[in-house]
Amino acid sequence: MAATATTNGAHANGIHLNGTDIDAKFAEQNEMNGFSPENIPPSEFHERIQKVQAALEPANLVGLLAFGDCWRGANICYFTHFRPLDGVSDIANSLFFLPANGPPALFVSIQCLSYAQTISTFPVYTFNDLASHLQKFSASNSGKLGLAGADYIPADLLDRVKAALGSVELVETSVLAEIKAVKSEREIALIRKASLLADAAMAAIRDTLADGKPHTERELALIADQAMLAGGAERTAYDSMVQAGPRSAFNLARPTDRVLQPGNLVMTDIGARYRGYVADGGRGFTYGPASEDKIAIVKAAARAVEAGLAEGKAGMTCAELNAVIQRSIVKSGYEEFSSEARGHGTGHGTGMDPEEEQPWIGPGNQTVLREGMVFTLKATITVPGVGGLRTERIVRVLPEGHESGRGIEALDQFPMELYW
Amino acid sequence: MAATATTNGAHANGIHLNGTDIDAKFAEQNEMNGFSPENIPPSEFHERIQKVQAALEPANLVGLLAFGDCWRGANICYFTHFRPLDGVSDIANSLFFLPANGPPALFVSIQCLSYAQTISTFPVYTFNDLASHLQKFSASNSGKLGLAGADYIPADLLDRVKAALGSVELVETSVLAEIKAVKSEREIALIRKASLLADAAMAAIRDTLADGKPHTERELALIADQAMLAGGAERTAYDSMVQAGPRSAFNLARPTDRVLQPGNLVMTDIGARYRGYVADGGRGFTYGPASEDKIAIVKAAARAVEAGLAEGKAGMTCAELNAVIQRSIVKSGYEEFSSEARGHGTGHGTGMDPEEEQPWIGPGNQTVLREGMVFTLKATITVPGVGGLRTERIVRVLPEGHESGRGIEALDQFPMELYW
Repeated sequence: MAATATTNGAHANGIHLNGTDIDAKFAEQNEMNGFSPENIPPSEFHERIQKVQAALEPANLVGLLAFGDCWRGANICYFTHFRPLDGVSDIANSLFFLPANGPPALFVSIQCLSYAQTISTFPVYTFNDLASHLQKFSASNSGKLGLAGADYIPADLLDRVKAALGSVELVETSVLAEIKAVKSEREIALIRKASLLADAAMAAIRDTLADGKPHTERELALIADQAMLAGGAERTAYDSMVQAGPRSAFNLARPTDRVLQPGNLVMTDIGARYRGYVADGGRGFTYGPASEDKIAIVKAAARAVEAGLAEGKAGMTCAELNAVIQRSIVKSGYEEFSSEARGHGTGHGTGMDPEEEQPWIGPGNQTVLREGMVFTLKATITVPGVGGLRTERIVRVLPEGHESGRGIEALDQFPMELYW
Repeated sequence: MAATATTNGAHANGIHLNGTDIDAKFAEQNEMNGFSPENIPPSEFHERIQKVQAALEPANLVGLLAFGDCWRGANICYFTHFRPLDGVSDIANSLFFLPANGPPALFVSIQCLSYAQTISTFPVYTFNDLASHLQKFSASNSGKLGLAGADYIPADLLDRVKAALGSVELVETSVLAEIKAVKSEREIALIRKASLLADAAMAAIRDTLADGKPHTERELALIADQAMLAGGAERTAYDSMVQAGPRSAFNLARPTDRVLQPGNLVMTDIGARYRGYVADGGRGFTYGPASEDKIAIVKAAARAVEAGLAEGKAGMTCAELNAVIQRSIVKSGYEEFSSEARGHGTGHGTGMDPEEEQPWIGPGNQTVLREGMVFTLKATITVPGVGGLRTERIVRVLPEGHESGRGIEALDQFPMELYW
């Protein structure tokens, strides 16, 4: 944290609650876990909890129940450094319970309990206590409890939650998705760092291909991952994609042992994770002497994303920004070769997970872009018999009247027109 | 594949179905994806489908519905090279449907469809076709459909499945878990390779610490991950754990910026993924001059796992093998400091995911160990105020009467008693 000690020892930038400096209160945690000024401090988690709590009653909710798992952890990680662990049992799951009027509680596997307690700023229980906790809440509350993470909560866990809630009705809510879509300065700094690590991956691929020797998709993905780790990434954001020649037409795929051939169009989608935040990047390139039709695809995708970068700004709706990119792809003549051009959306929220629900940059979405929102802008073009790519940038919305004169800033730097 | 061409061009070791060489039939796939003799070939996937299909009627099932996601993909990856991709939407999910009498079908997101089709040996559809496919099946079948992956299937998807099944009853089944618990030679070779990559990670940590400079948990996890990638791992099996001093007491946790201190006990749990197969390893070590009570913990955990390695064999039940390790920990005096000693189980199946359901090495489990089963053997010892570790090996069951005289072989090699 960037706090400066004041004369009475309290941190000048710390949050005070009833005279208690929250960051100081959790100094013990910092000591156990080592202190990195890059990490989200307890005071910022506390602010978030208060902000979400304050939004519940206006949304006609008596509370929030947020589900997250090891890989889609944003709904949990928004409130704590804890993210569940990999596995087929409940070690992979977590529930964050926040009453509109009451203290929060986190539920984790018993195998994660002591760890979760040392990195959270509120009480943590095991799933054994979930039913009684919810029952007690429903005995003295009536109304609607908002569920975040409804799309991926396991059936078994959802059944247990509903059984314990009694007359309190569980409804899907977007309250959390809306609030976490606006990133803080610290979050943006971490996403920026992750983005530059993803850029380093592209540079490593470029430099490897410059040797003129044969390389496979798999090998290049490995080199990309090594570059991100070498720069300090704690891991990849997701499994790196490198797809050459005919495989460049696949929207989503995994690398194979296919050797890149001169003249190929190559699709890549590579991201890094850094201190709980991720970059979700995409760059396509031509390899060796390439035909005009492939070069045209690279150009058209770059033009489309550039249009979004140039025109996006606070106050615009997601639908309007989507239309800018969609129009550009259509104007380039690729309407039938692009899902974005056909209205499937040109970007998605990102931050603690590669994909967050909001803001979704797509047709019909009247959500207004606000300063601090972070999302991707992308153009995917796939022409049968030629190849394809996805050009994807990570961007943040700047304050209105920003000194740069721009409305949007790209957090990643790597160029989009790549002819290697 | 290790096939040798015969005089008529068919592969000598290939599976023939009605005179068709299955591997030759999918030669086009091999050409698109590059051919690696390490990969599971189409003929082996075909054998597996036949084996599972043949087990359905004896289990009183009219079919199997197997759910897998991006991170718990084993139920899908047993049948195809396809594994879903990371995300909050249906791109992360897949369902494999196998009637007892009928052809299999794989259901994936539309964004993965063409990719999945180029690496599967049976028809692939999108989730849009799921309901009609299941409805058609239930119109001409009655009885029970077995569900694999019940613990982590999302609620929403399960509801859609049940709605489409009509009168066909969905029941949990362990048929798939039992069959995939026995690994083929190719699978064992891949797990062995992943295990040696995890060993390389431990060597890298050891060599780093030898410089006598300060290192954090986070830094060592990064070095471990870099070593695995440098050896050819496509990624880590899960997020590497390095926990020092008081943090070594956590059963499951994530690395922090804590600096290792001389005298610390350090817990690690690190694994690699290689061509679809993983290693799940665990080693604890003392760092610098350590107290007797810490050294004793390292020894006791090693003794316990060694006992399992020495006595395990085909024909023994999982419960009997569990008892060997459990008894050793109790005999060492750590009964109250070890979950394994208290009957929580001393190992789990592993292979395509770090954790597979079978075989579970635990009390009461009468499942008989069979040649080719692969699982972990572990001992976790945690003493408050001293520290803890988890010593975990990956092992396979040898054929009865193996020339080595042993019943079990460790696939990883790194020593267990580590005093660094």
